[in-house]
Amino acid sequence: MTKVYVKYKDGIIDPEAENTKKALKMLGYDVKNVRIWKVYEIETEDNIKEMVERLLVNPVIHEYKIE
Amino acid sequence: MTKVYVKYKDGIIDPEAENTKKALKMLGYDVKNVRIWKVYEIETEDNIKEMVERLLVNPVIHEYKIE
Repeated sequence: MTKVYVKYKDGIIDPEAENTKKALKMLGYDVKNVRIWKVYEIETEDNIKEMVERLLVNPVIHEYKIE
Repeated sequence: MTKVYVKYKDGIIDPEAENTKKALKMLGYDVKNVRIWKVYEIETEDNIKEMVERLLVNPVIHEYKIE
């Protein structure tokens, strides 16, 4: 089981994170920041880095780490 | 910075994970399983558990942990 963590690069606005922050503020919470990672747990013997770069991330806007 | 890990409960089909697995197989990879977690990193002094239950998860289909 390999874990791949994907998020938007710093400096690129993550619309879902922004909206989550806005919605929490509208509910009355004092939220300074929200960031969202997506974590893929993949069971395979094949080359995960290749899979990730072909399908799971867009290198223009995403950064990722494999663990 | 608190991290909230959210995923579909076991036994509940995660459509995005299923489609990711299908797409990787169509690209020729031998993938046994894909699971997806969403991780919210939230900077706040307020009650995170309450926020999560009010806005971020649906307890019928999601499980979560706060770290």
